[in-house]
Amino acid sequence: MRTPARNAELALLLEVAGTPKPGNVDRHRDLEDLRFEHFLAGAVGAREGLELAGDGAAVGAAFERAVAGMAEQGGGNTQFGSLLLLVPLVRAAREELAQPTVEAVCEDTTVADAADFYRAFDRVDVFVGDPPADMEPLDVRRGSDAVPALEDRGLTLLDVMERSVPGDDVAREWVTGFERSFAAAERLADADPDAPVTKRTAAVFLSLLADRPDTLVATRSGEAVAREVSDRAAELLERDALETDPDAVETFADDLVARGVNPGTTADVTAAGLFIALEREAIAV
Amino acid sequence: MRTPARNAELALLLEVAGTPKPGNVDRHRDLEDLRFEHFLAGAVGAREGLELAGDGAAVGAAFERAVAGMAEQGGGNTQFGSLLLLVPLVRAAREELAQPTVEAVCEDTTVADAADFYRAFDRVDVFVGDPPADMEPLDVRRGSDAVPALEDRGLTLLDVMERSVPGDDVAREWVTGFERSFAAAERLADADPDAPVTKRTAAVFLSLLADRPDTLVATRSGEAVAREVSDRAAELLERDALETDPDAVETFADDLVARGVNPGTTADVTAAGLFIALEREAIAV
Repeated sequence: MRTPARNAELALLLEVAGTPKPGNVDRHRDLEDLRFEHFLAGAVGAREGLELAGDGAAVGAAFERAVAGMAEQGGGNTQFGSLLLLVPLVRAAREELAQPTVEAVCEDTTVADAADFYRAFDRVDVFVGDPPADMEPLDVRRGSDAVPALEDRGLTLLDVMERSVPGDDVAREWVTGFERSFAAAERLADADPDAPVTKRTAAVFLSLLADRPDTLVATRSGEAVAREVSDRAAELLERDALETDPDAVETFADDLVARGVNPGTTADVTAAGLFIALEREAIAV
Repeated sequence: MRTPARNAELALLLEVAGTPKPGNVDRHRDLEDLRFEHFLAGAVGAREGLELAGDGAAVGAAFERAVAGMAEQGGGNTQFGSLLLLVPLVRAAREELAQPTVEAVCEDTTVADAADFYRAFDRVDVFVGDPPADMEPLDVRRGSDAVPALEDRGLTLLDVMERSVPGDDVAREWVTGFERSFAAAERLADADPDAPVTKRTAAVFLSLLADRPDTLVATRSGEAVAREVSDRAAELLERDALETDPDAVETFADDLVARGVNPGTTADVTAAGLFIALEREAIAV
């Protein structure tokens, strides 16, 4: 019997194994200092925190533990955003994994969950943009140093996520009932069941990238680059290039890696979609 | 802190990610019905049994649980032999991981451990050769049906392993103090520490294959094929082909996959070596 924690770890592994996943580490591509093996170790390390979530621990505590375990490898941040989606999903899967149950999990988060979320930033460097001026004391890059300001304002983890939208499509999942994560799961379910899951993962990643510019790319490289990448994904998707012209997708993937453009938020949503699809037995490995 | 169970799961993942690993599923190669994703799921599924071993459970019970979890994927047998090496190694790592401690773990196995080992064969089809005539009632392919005969003869798990040598180099590890597994760990430690672990894994796999004909290949395809494959690995190793002529190793890998020649025992010893090297912090991910 596969527990939610086990499926969540498997989702992290299937996500990184999906190829071609333009711009990101995948089964066939390493970045210079961030390699496939770091993602394997990150997924294995996250398991304990995911199990806490599956056992009903608070979302913040489970997330902090998952990130701490994930960070015990030499590549740095591999799966922070993915875990921020997976932890509430694993928690929701204790009952029935559906949009209303995961929304309820998010609504039930507390100031203590938010504090643990901030503490997780002490574990690993996460690339984020500057906060708005009134949120400066709550800049996540302050990590646990921001906890007193957070407690003063009495913000829950869901409140923090609400303040991170727009500009962060992981946070957006929290406030939209994990809309794109569930959509990704449906697309995985609709794909050819005989194709390797790693191939179906690549197709869903490309479709998500075509839907919306990646917010990590926007933060690091600017809105224009994020839009260009999304438009190029849409063009490839439109002509079913993964099937009809796979070399074009491989070229796109190599080009983004060479430019250092990594659509990490899209990968996070892909991992969340894989988890939902595994839990619902819409895909089988 | 990485526990032995966590390192063992990571060793399984690093082993399958090592490439090129001639004849086997690797980061760049799937077999027809046995894909990379099945190995990912097998490793994730084995974790619970590995944790039992890390918590001090009996070797047979931990192995049976690890195999049961590993088998919950659609590819069939992915890591049976690797787990037969990893479980006693994880058990030994509770104290200090060294040849004498793992030998003591094997010597302490009982008839009950042997019975659980046989029960593990009910979980998954494992390719093994015919036993000698006097061992026919104890053919492992009988699975749990052989347990009464096993109990009649009072054989421990180490006794069973002793009767499987020669012809099975996983069993040979049990009776030689895991000689090749520890040698593999030393070779991993001696390799370029800046190279990706997946690349170091490929080099060690090739060296092990060059050392001795793979016993799974011998059982499935005959001694002559096993010797030919080992000789070809030795020739590539001799001229440092992974560095000087990587295409030749890739060609060898593709050729073995096309012929259905899978040196699975060599992969098992590689996984065991990875675990020992991780535990001793001789390699870092």
